[in-house]
Amino acid sequence: MSKTITAALCASAALALGAPAMAAQPSSAELRATASKLFQPIPEAQVVVRDKKLTPDQIQLGKWLFFEPRLSKSHIISCNTCHSVGTGGADNIPTSIGHGWQHGPRNSPTVFNAVFNIAQFWDGRAADLQEQAKGPVQASVEMNATPKHVEDTLRSIPEYVEFFAKAFPGEKQAITFDNMAKAIEAFESTLTTPNSRFDQYLAGKETLNGTELKGLNLFISKGCVACHAGINVGGQGYFPFGVVKKPGAEVLPVKDKGRFTVTNTASDEYVFRAGPLRNIALTAPYFHSGEVWDLEQAVAIMGSSQLGQELNADEVKSITAFLNTLTGEQPKVEYPTLPRSTAATPKPQQ
Amino acid sequence: MSKTITAALCASAALALGAPAMAAQPSSAELRATASKLFQPIPEAQVVVRDKKLTPDQIQLGKWLFFEPRLSKSHIISCNTCHSVGTGGADNIPTSIGHGWQHGPRNSPTVFNAVFNIAQFWDGRAADLQEQAKGPVQASVEMNATPKHVEDTLRSIPEYVEFFAKAFPGEKQAITFDNMAKAIEAFESTLTTPNSRFDQYLAGKETLNGTELKGLNLFISKGCVACHAGINVGGQGYFPFGVVKKPGAEVLPVKDKGRFTVTNTASDEYVFRAGPLRNIALTAPYFHSGEVWDLEQAVAIMGSSQLGQELNADEVKSITAFLNTLTGEQPKVEYPTLPRSTAATPKPQQ
Repeated sequence: MSKTITAALCASAALALGAPAMAAQPSSAELRATASKLFQPIPEAQVVVRDKKLTPDQIQLGKWLFFEPRLSKSHIISCNTCHSVGTGGADNIPTSIGHGWQHGPRNSPTVFNAVFNIAQFWDGRAADLQEQAKGPVQASVEMNATPKHVEDTLRSIPEYVEFFAKAFPGEKQAITFDNMAKAIEAFESTLTTPNSRFDQYLAGKETLNGTELKGLNLFISKGCVACHAGINVGGQGYFPFGVVKKPGAEVLPVKDKGRFTVTNTASDEYVFRAGPLRNIALTAPYFHSGEVWDLEQAVAIMGSSQLGQELNADEVKSITAFLNTLTGEQPKVEYPTLPRSTAATPKPQQ
Repeated sequence: MSKTITAALCASAALALGAPAMAAQPSSAELRATASKLFQPIPEAQVVVRDKKLTPDQIQLGKWLFFEPRLSKSHIISCNTCHSVGTGGADNIPTSIGHGWQHGPRNSPTVFNAVFNIAQFWDGRAADLQEQAKGPVQASVEMNATPKHVEDTLRSIPEYVEFFAKAFPGEKQAITFDNMAKAIEAFESTLTTPNSRFDQYLAGKETLNGTELKGLNLFISKGCVACHAGINVGGQGYFPFGVVKKPGAEVLPVKDKGRFTVTNTASDEYVFRAGPLRNIALTAPYFHSGEVWDLEQAVAIMGSSQLGQELNADEVKSITAFLNTLTGEQPKVEYPTLPRSTAATPKPQQ
């Protein structure tokens, strides 16, 4: 069953989720209590590691693979190319550039906190990060490789043979395309960004100023929270882009019908996973089309297209100020020294 | 004056450099004494930092810039793209791929220990790393940017304004294309790879086995050392590729005349800077054309083209075993978290 909710549901969801209809600014205590019902803080990486029972060997192997350009046909594209740990977990261009300088169809979503999304990709076509990791490796417009290329490459390098055996003990042939994806998921699960000012606020600290608190209240009372709630302030469900009014084709290209191509259900036309808003200030340009560079403009478009409200300049500024508090501590990643190729390693093809 | 030496000089240089004509394997003490005259160990980064009077602010800024894709017109190519700190300081493909998936003319040289080379690029057209850094940023087949693009970009980002001011104190306008290059040079100067097994041997330890010692002796006595000596085991002078016999066009493409395009001197046709051999085991494929993947094959080609000797299989294996001892400790680099763009930052153009 599609998790899409209708426009009617969307409009009423703020209340359903426990947000009172707040016309005026509520008291400080009321606002924090409401926010604490609607959002959860981003945990430290070690909490995720424990919950998902990830081993240090799996995480370390996954880090190698995340930075491994030899997973691509050309040997110059790695996961980090489009999901750079140095720039908010994304590439910050409209749509990604892959093999042969082909332009991909959609904006690269951040890998940071992606483990907390309900599913992966803008249309949710991958259930989890493991399934997701297999996509770009094989996509002809991205890394343009095959499972065989990946397995042949990794099996030709003694250090990978050793590391896969450690990460997946007891398996006769530990180097498989599936285990590559599992290891990448393990590493990506550690890319969380805790301790944003908003999370400190949720923990009881006075980290938000007046404008940001006003923005938080507007975010809840105007109904943004209907689609952007939970741990990732979004990323938890599917919604039509243009609940009330469709944006222009420059923002919502007519040909990209979103989740429709996954479910083949008419009501899923132009339906996308609500963008997770954690670290949103770091990952312009915005929307699946990557056509909007200014966060205030993105907020205004959301107001008119999803809520049917022309937010005034002051409201847009306040909501944007709140969104800026969602930037957490960025992961510290030591660049891995990758093992060298051997005579048996497939050569790059460009 | 060109630093090219002639074939005659090259053939006699081993002796000139102090290498005795060793037919049989010399005694252990003799070999170490000779090697210590011909080669110097790679120092720790802090020695270079002290000698060059680099400040922590310059190095830190340089690290940001080394990983900064917004220095390129497309916003997806950084210094690290072709000189990856994870893969021996190079990209390990025949010739680099740049803007618009254009193929560059030559194999990407390693950035590791590049500070010790006499000059930069295969033809030595840049005197130092500072001059070198300006090349790929502007080359249309590489990052395809302009000094104005770089300065506009960096000046639009408050964190860069602050960091340049710290790195270059007292300068009215610290953000300049020249200072970008200076900072990148400062960071790249820290990318040294000390403590290779060969350097430990030079320091008096018994780290080389019999085959490797035999290879070292052959490397000296056969005359390889005439062009590949000093701290970087090469990188110190210019020599014709094909001193004795020109290799085939697949290895020495006819159109690339090397240093001739720098000096416009007939004797510099097909003259290149002798490749520095530090970490050579990590940076296949070999030669400026990047057409040879196997290090043993590269050694054999050097024997016939530079020394006019058909090295036998055992000699090739021994020399290659010695070259494998030149792999040092790889730099540990924490991926920098780059500051976000602002509304004034130039947009990517792809």
